[in-house]
Formats: sequence, structure tokens, C-alpha cells
Amino acid sequence: MATKTARAYTNIALIKYWGKKDKQLKIPYTNSLSLTLDKFYTDTKSEIIDSDKDQIYLNDELLDDAKSKRITNYLDFVRNYFGFDQHFLVKSVNHVPTSAGFASSASGFAALAASINQTMKLNLDNRSLSILARNGSGSASRSIYGGFVEWIAGTSNDTSYAVPIDEHPNIDLSLLSVVISQDTKKISSTSGMENSVKTSPFYDNWVTLVSSEINEIKQAIAQKDVQKIGELSEHNAMSMHALTLSANPSFTYFAPETIRVIQLVKSLRSQGVLAYVTIDAGPNVKIICTKESAEIVQKYIDDNLPAVTTVVANIGNGIQYI
Amino acid sequence: MATKTARAYTNIALIKYWGKKDKQLKIPYTNSLSLTLDKFYTDTKSEIIDSDKDQIYLNDELLDDAKSKRITNYLDFVRNYFGFDQHFLVKSVNHVPTSAGFASSASGFAALAASINQTMKLNLDNRSLSILARNGSGSASRSIYGGFVEWIAGTSNDTSYAVPIDEHPNIDLSLLSVVISQDTKKISSTSGMENSVKTSPFYDNWVTLVSSEINEIKQAIAQKDVQKIGELSEHNAMSMHALTLSANPSFTYFAPETIRVIQLVKSLRSQGVLAYVTIDAGPNVKIICTKESAEIVQKYIDDNLPAVTTVVANIGNGIQYI
Repeated sequence: MATKTARAYTNIALIKYWGKKDKQLKIPYTNSLSLTLDKFYTDTKSEIIDSDKDQIYLNDELLDDAKSKRITNYLDFVRNYFGFDQHFLVKSVNHVPTSAGFASSASGFAALAASINQTMKLNLDNRSLSILARNGSGSASRSIYGGFVEWIAGTSNDTSYAVPIDEHPNIDLSLLSVVISQDTKKISSTSGMENSVKTSPFYDNWVTLVSSEINEIKQAIAQKDVQKIGELSEHNAMSMHALTLSANPSFTYFAPETIRVIQLVKSLRSQGVLAYVTIDAGPNVKIICTKESAEIVQKYIDDNLPAVTTVVANIGNGIQYI
Repeated sequence: MATKTARAYTNIALIKYWGKKDKQLKIPYTNSLSLTLDKFYTDTKSEIIDSDKDQIYLNDELLDDAKSKRITNYLDFVRNYFGFDQHFLVKSVNHVPTSAGFASSASGFAALAASINQTMKLNLDNRSLSILARNGSGSASRSIYGGFVEWIAGTSNDTSYAVPIDEHPNIDLSLLSVVISQDTKKISSTSGMENSVKTSPFYDNWVTLVSSEINEIKQAIAQKDVQKIGELSEHNAMSMHALTLSANPSFTYFAPETIRVIQLVKSLRSQGVLAYVTIDAGPNVKIICTKESAEIVQKYIDDNLPAVTTVVANIGNGIQYI
């Protein structure tokens, strides 16, 4: 293979993406804002093959039709979008262990988009790459950039993309991932979002809330105010989960241990430790810390909840070709 | 003592009271709708004493100034309201065991208001009695009546009172109380409400929601549709808890076991068992069942969570003088 490997890192939304205005194009109701993380990433290589079918390897395993469907559907979209008809051999290796409690779709589709960009010599700029990645998975649009990233909701395919806010922030922020369960969630984020949009009486207020919290967190990022970033992130995440509770019928991604971790974090915070939770569409908890507080929080959680796994991550980079 | 004992039963709100428009007068932002329960009640007797101080006995213990303050403040209000100056010996016995997971303020203030009504020969009708009880504790306004009761929010002291919806409903509905913790909650419902009203971005939508769910549940009650009553009650309770999650800072009354009980109820429901949860400002869960399903749910929870206490209650009566 002459092409390089495309590497994309995962990201954690601090101001959440929760609700699609256009399901097909993955255009959200609101902007969202994330932090790209080091340590968890996907490496993807692709080459053109003389076949009318893509061949997809994930972690050295050739995926069957059912397992590769989401990826080959995406490649069909890419072929149609750019008007070429080549098929690909794709080799993707996920360094986003399920045990780290992150979804791999953000880094996965960002790396795949970047890899096709290279193999097909599309010469896409980052904005176009973000649009391309978004069509695979909404949150993948943000993994094009490092550091703090905002996904502009937009109103059409061409206007919905991520922009860097601060790619290499000089800020003392670490993220502790607390993994409660590695099971596949019962309610996918796609259907969770859909139920929230359709049935939560609070959804219109959520849209208003996000727009003001995005502005506030950008100020806090500019001021390198980790505590304020934490406060805003925690409030935004909990408000997202309030949408699931108030959906009809009500549902929640919280497990009993999720509540326990929230309690532990509040207890540490009352002792002056900088720690704020954020939670995605699942039971696992991520904790916004400083480098120093991350160690304290990790030990406290390990001591109190020996059954969970904890991993510390730091701020990561955007797309790389290696 | 010549006077009879006033007995008031506790009630569970199916459409919740969450937020005071007037803190002093305890006038809520919304109507609420409750079910009065048998089994849990307060018995209160009062007599005039020749003293400038009230004497309050609770469960045969004479309360000191600190412990009796809420009650003597209330009696001061009553004296001022009706323009008399007598003081009272009050003997109150709570048959609302903390272990049943119910607050005793609803039955407590309803029984106290009824007892003073009798001792002072005030001849209050039930509406006036409900107003009087409300001034002790908002939810006490509803314990004047049996069965299904609506508390009309009103806009002033004289227009905020409960009305009976169906005092003796011929409906197959039982309530299973699941007691997770008997500890005093860290955030009182008064300050939980206040934080929600002031800081939840969803509060205005809650007010709209309650007004439509009150109408829907009254239809379901008229149709004796227990499943619909359960669905509406569960959604309303969860939406109330969504207000606490989305408050700023976020908080929750849920304990880890609260989530576990919700999971167990959902699991039973998916097997066709009629069971819906409602949760007040604390970790304990009440489950709306039929007589038949209450037994199944109680056994399932006892088997899966041996540490919790479960009690079944049925529909109770309004104020009685015995």
C-alpha cells in the first residue's frame, strides 16, 4: 500500500449533540462542543481493489456483510457523493477499547473519511473532511480537529461541519473515564435522540439552553477556566439526561452505579476537589478534572467501586497521516 | 378531653406538586392530583390549655422548642388567622412509619387543622379545612379528602384548596411502597422545588405539561383505566425528576437502588405485569399496580432486593373524627 494510515482520535462532547433535525444527513438541532482525547483512536488504511464489493477488516478480522453494512453503506454514499465507482479494501484498527467506555464511531468514521480522502486524492480541506465524516456518524465531524471543537449545526449538508475552537489549548484539564458496563446499550443514541425530540416536553427549551451554554463554555475555554468548563459540562449533560427521563415513555441510560459515581464526585467536590461529571448515551461516567485532581478522583473511585475500570485521558490531536 | 380524635390519611401525588409561586402562603405554580391511601395516617387530639405556650406531644413524646417550632409557628398562624389567642395541648400519633417511605407532613397538618377546627368549634367546611391544612404543608391540603383529589393551585389564600375528584373510586388500584432509605433527605423538597423553579431551563414547560396531564389523568380516572393512570403518573414523576437533573447545579433524589427498582419494574412490565413507578423528593419508589400485580411486583422486588422494605397500601378515606 502506498497510502499512509489515517489516525483519528475520539472526542467527548462537553455540550452535547442530542437530536437530529435531518436524520438522513445527520444535521443536528443544535451546535455541540467537544474535547478530542489522546490515547483512544482509530487507525485506518484503504486501497482501491478490482472488485464490485468493499472488503472491510476491523482489528484484523474480515467483516461479513451484516457487520460491514454500516461501513459499506457509507462508502456507497461517498462514491455517489464524489461520483467515482471504485471499491476499497479497508483495514481499520480500533484503539478505542470498549473497556474505555467510548463509542468508536467518532474516531472510526473520521479515520475512514480521511483515509478515502487520501486514497482517492480528493484533497479535501478540513471543513469538507468534517462534512464527509459527519455523514458517517454525527460526532465524527468533530474528530477531524484536536483540542476543543465546535460542530456548527448548519441547515444543509454543506453548512453542517466542525470548526476548531482551540486545537492545542494550554490548559490543565484531564478526563477520567469510569467504565461501569461494556454491554451494548439497550437504547441506541439514535433512537434515544429520536424519542427525546418527539416526546420530551422539554426539548424546545433544550435547544435554547444549548445555544447559551455553547457561548458560555467558549468564554470559559478562552479564559482557561477548568472549573467553569466543568460546571457547564455537568449541567449540560444532566439536562440531556433530563430529556430522556421526561420522554414518553420515560427512559434513562443511568445504571445504579452511575448514580453512585455521581454521588462520589459530589462528595469529593464538597471537599474541594475539582471534578465534574459528563455522561453520554450509556451508563459510563466521564469526569472532568485537573491533572492533580484526576489522580485523587481515580483512587477514590477505585477504592469505593472496585468493580469499575478507570482510565485517564488527556487532550488529543486532530487527524494525522502516519 | 371532650373532643374526638381527628384522623387524616397520607396521600401520594400522581401528578406532582413541584414549585411554589408564593412560599409564605404555599401557593403552587400548578394544580396537582393525588390518591389518599389507607394504612398510613395521623391521629391528633387537641385541647385548650391555660398557658401562653403550646404543648406538643408526638408519639407520646413532649417536643422541645426546636422540635415543635414548625407546629407552634403554624398554630400562631391559625390564631392570627381566626383572631383567637388560646394555646393548645396537642397530642399527635403518627401511623406513618418512616419505614413506609412516606412523609408525615401531609397527614400531620391535615389532622392538626381538623383537630383545631373541632376544638375551637370553627365549623369549617372541607374547602376551608383544606385551605387551613395547606398553610401547614402544601400536600396536606389534599389529605382532607379520600380517593382521588385535585389541589387547585389558585392565586391567593382563599382560592388555593383541594377538591375531591372521586372519593370512593371503584377501581382496582393498589400502591406498593418500596423503601430504599429511611434517612432524612439531604435536599428538602422545599429547597429542591426552589432550585428547580429558579434554575431549571425546563420549568416553564413543566407548568404546561402538568396542566395537560391533570386533564388526561382525570379522564383516565373517570374511565377507571389503571394502565393509563400508571403511564401518566410515571411520566409526570420522571419529568419532575428531570427538573432536578436540569437544575443548576444539577441534583437528584435518586439513589443507586432507585434506578434498580425502575429497571425491575420495566422488566416486569415487558412481561405484561401492570406496574408503573412514581417517585417523590427522595430515593423511595411507589409502584402503581392492580391488587393482583402488586403481589407479583412485591415478590419480585423482595427476591431481587432483599435489603429494601415493601408495603402495599390501598385507597384511603378523607378526614375522620373518631
